[in-house]
Amino acid sequence: MTVYGYSASGNCHKLRLLLTQLEREFKWVDVDSTAGATRTPEYLAKNPNGKVPMIELDDGRILTESNAILCYLAEGTPFFVGDTYQRALVLSWLFFEQYSHEPYIAVARFIRGWTPLDSPRRASLPQLRERGNQALAVMEQHLKSNAWFSGEAYGIADIALFAYTGVADEGGFDLSAYPAVLAWLERVRQTPRFVAMPAPPVEALSRLALPD
Amino acid sequence: MTVYGYSASGNCHKLRLLLTQLEREFKWVDVDSTAGATRTPEYLAKNPNGKVPMIELDDGRILTESNAILCYLAEGTPFFVGDTYQRALVLSWLFFEQYSHEPYIAVARFIRGWTPLDSPRRASLPQLRERGNQALAVMEQHLKSNAWFSGEAYGIADIALFAYTGVADEGGFDLSAYPAVLAWLERVRQTPRFVAMPAPPVEALSRLALPD
Repeated sequence: MTVYGYSASGNCHKLRLLLTQLEREFKWVDVDSTAGATRTPEYLAKNPNGKVPMIELDDGRILTESNAILCYLAEGTPFFVGDTYQRALVLSWLFFEQYSHEPYIAVARFIRGWTPLDSPRRASLPQLRERGNQALAVMEQHLKSNAWFSGEAYGIADIALFAYTGVADEGGFDLSAYPAVLAWLERVRQTPRFVAMPAPPVEALSRLALPD
Repeated sequence: MTVYGYSASGNCHKLRLLLTQLEREFKWVDVDSTAGATRTPEYLAKNPNGKVPMIELDDGRILTESNAILCYLAEGTPFFVGDTYQRALVLSWLFFEQYSHEPYIAVARFIRGWTPLDSPRRASLPQLRERGNQALAVMEQHLKSNAWFSGEAYGIADIALFAYTGVADEGGFDLSAYPAVLAWLERVRQTPRFVAMPAPPVEALSRLALPD
């Protein structure tokens, strides 16, 4: 299996983390989505939506959308278990992540790290921060009475939500207001075969180190 | 089962459409999310994310996120079939809908119909239109060689994408550039027991009738 991904993207790292924890072999092809590499004719022929991550199976079949890929890879494993209702709860968190979390927390990090310091997009940071904090508050409430987002044990909903919550500080979010989230992040980091997301490129890192 | 929803919301209508086509009984409780009804303490106790739709099963269990609910309701029915890969393709379209389609096409419709004519949010319409058209182009390309989004037959990916594509004109989108999308919309409308989304309230309708 080949994973097409940008290493410092949380959406892409979800797949590296799950595949590593599943001890599955895979080839990683780095695609710099921040430099137009998902908009080439060759890439668009495989994924007309022009986004990473994408997987290509050995027989050439393609699958896109990080959380759909998580479901596919985790099927039949301890990372996606339960009856129809329990699995629907996992899906509910996956859709929450893509609709109410990622567009604020991941996008704030992207704008801070990957756009010029004078980018007009930086004006949106306060609003992204507000909506991202709403998502973190929802997570905090869940974690006050649950250890995981995937049911009784760690699984793909935790992997999906960990991806950008684990680097929310790079988006300018202060997680000290969310002690249950901080404790959960640490539990995720202690899971077997956990692997951290690679650091962003140097230029992004230097921007991320600056205040807004 | 009780569905909590706002009748003129495409996300909520997805559930009315599927449940009607499944010939399942349900009670519909109208929740006016445009007037703060999803932000009351009573509602937030059931759904801390404060959104519609939400279903409450007869034993009190709750499920949120329209597309997760579609998967739950369609499990074991002809609306969500196939092997693990085919079902993952359906999930891929469901995530596409929530990430690359709804935030532009549904939000443009909401801004046009449900915000005051002098709302500063209207300045975002051209950008929403651009991104929404990208989503429509991805759909058009798929439909050039496929009749449905859910595999060989109509199913939940079609229901999810129909919800706001069917009213994209209210968001100011011109679908005449997407003949395959128009033909697919008509195929969906011809499915057994199809039910149209209720019209928006009068005030929204009158705003939607105006140019941007």
